[in-house]
Amino acid sequence: MSLVLRVGPARAQWWLEHLQSLLPDIECRPWDDPGDPAAVRYAVVWKPPAGGLKRFPNLELIVSIGAGIDHVLADPELPQGIPIIRTTGDELTQRMREYVLMHVLRIHRQLPLVEAAQEKAEWLQIVIPPATGRTVGVMGLGNLGGDAARMLATVGFKVRGWSRSPKLIDGVSPFAGFNALEAFLSECEILVCLLPLTSETRGILNADLFAKLPAGASVINAARGEHLVEDDLLAALDSGHLKSATLDVFYEEPLPSKHPFWAHPKVLVTPHVASMIDPESGGKMIAANIQRFIAGEPIADLVDLEKGY
Amino acid sequence: MSLVLRVGPARAQWWLEHLQSLLPDIECRPWDDPGDPAAVRYAVVWKPPAGGLKRFPNLELIVSIGAGIDHVLADPELPQGIPIIRTTGDELTQRMREYVLMHVLRIHRQLPLVEAAQEKAEWLQIVIPPATGRTVGVMGLGNLGGDAARMLATVGFKVRGWSRSPKLIDGVSPFAGFNALEAFLSECEILVCLLPLTSETRGILNADLFAKLPAGASVINAARGEHLVEDDLLAALDSGHLKSATLDVFYEEPLPSKHPFWAHPKVLVTPHVASMIDPESGGKMIAANIQRFIAGEPIADLVDLEKGY
Repeated sequence: MSLVLRVGPARAQWWLEHLQSLLPDIECRPWDDPGDPAAVRYAVVWKPPAGGLKRFPNLELIVSIGAGIDHVLADPELPQGIPIIRTTGDELTQRMREYVLMHVLRIHRQLPLVEAAQEKAEWLQIVIPPATGRTVGVMGLGNLGGDAARMLATVGFKVRGWSRSPKLIDGVSPFAGFNALEAFLSECEILVCLLPLTSETRGILNADLFAKLPAGASVINAARGEHLVEDDLLAALDSGHLKSATLDVFYEEPLPSKHPFWAHPKVLVTPHVASMIDPESGGKMIAANIQRFIAGEPIADLVDLEKGY
Repeated sequence: MSLVLRVGPARAQWWLEHLQSLLPDIECRPWDDPGDPAAVRYAVVWKPPAGGLKRFPNLELIVSIGAGIDHVLADPELPQGIPIIRTTGDELTQRMREYVLMHVLRIHRQLPLVEAAQEKAEWLQIVIPPATGRTVGVMGLGNLGGDAARMLATVGFKVRGWSRSPKLIDGVSPFAGFNALEAFLSECEILVCLLPLTSETRGILNADLFAKLPAGASVINAARGEHLVEDDLLAALDSGHLKSATLDVFYEEPLPSKHPFWAHPKVLVTPHVASMIDPESGGKMIAANIQRFIAGEPIADLVDLEKGY
């Protein structure tokens, strides 16, 4: 009985040893050297390449090293009907909360203007409203989006939340479903995307959506690169309709060095660091979920394959 | 019976009209054209020049347009024994909360490194601890500091607070008095100064204090320029002991264009905008406090002249 692990090369060996120490009864092996394919029961993966998982005829469980499972479902040859567990946890939520708060505040307080003034030794006092006069919209109210929306409201912002089904969060005005999307967007000065990536949300950040935001709005995408139609964003920034974009995720990662986002004066690029699974605590969560699976116990992070997240 | 008003020139006329509309029974006049000095009972001031207030022999009340009164006490010829009311209010607290959160998060998440990497189109993923592994110290736990400390703890930081007398705030480890200062500082990775400016706190951000911070700490001063010994800060930054400074306040404001802070790579200069009194709501608070004073009602913002804040 064995487990295969696929993560980025930088910390692969560390992860492997960490998981092995937590799961002593299961042989943990690297993705590229899985041993007997028939012995592999568990696959712990980030962005498995197409056709990679179907190598294992007795696979019982797939674990996504991440809160999303889109990178697993992207495999056109994914073996069907195998349960998928995603990896969440307090640290993932904590880090996303920090990212969203920091970047919403940076836009709200016009920090880029303050920094540009410093370069000119210019004492530029801009009068801006307090957060209580600023509307922030959060798309996606799951573990990460729900927490970020609640925290933005706690800090003082006027917060609206948009989700597939209605969610009630203290201090957050609820909007649900595509029929409510236009009303939701109409007042969002800062829009934060924390949606899961599904067939319904792919490309949702497009020209049509941007046109429904108030002029001068800013967009933060910390969900998935595929939520965004990149050319539509560039057009909305260049027309002046959108003021800025803060992007943590991209179609292609690492973002290619020639990509126009890097040098665009209205785009802040962060290298998919909004939130990350800490190998230490993330490994513990993954091992605990695998043990629950083996023991037949309930698993909060088991994915509803019909909803896709 | 009249009131004199002294504010910066930019919005002086607006302030005057606003206050006059709120206090129709009192003649509101500009600082430089006060009419009959003997008729002046109330002075509403920001940084009154030395000797300016003693012109008014029947002055009954001084109102500081700000949470601090150091700029009033700085007048060596200040008439003694006249009550001083400071101006606080939710908006001042709200704006300071935003400033502190944004800048603590910016330092915690190493945003300057991320921005520098973007300039080189470099996909630089830095691994940092979550806020739950980062210690922030707040000096001064009054209206502004107490709120900022509470909010930092709510976001997830490990927060310690230092004040003259012990203050208990949810999630904030309390340290009180100069005997506890060294223990307080010893773990502060990010130090936020929100102290009142008094004879005890003038120059408190000096070489001795910086040496007690852990190596690599950052300092944020959003209180008063006079809290900081500027040369000591430059030395601590240049030796590498301190990582960065974020400064909103300065000995001389506007900060002179030749000042070394402007071009220092480890200093972020913000032009005294951390928090500001909104003329609209600030004027209402000031007018209400003057009316309470006239009616002999209790005033929460009346200064304890013995403590000096």
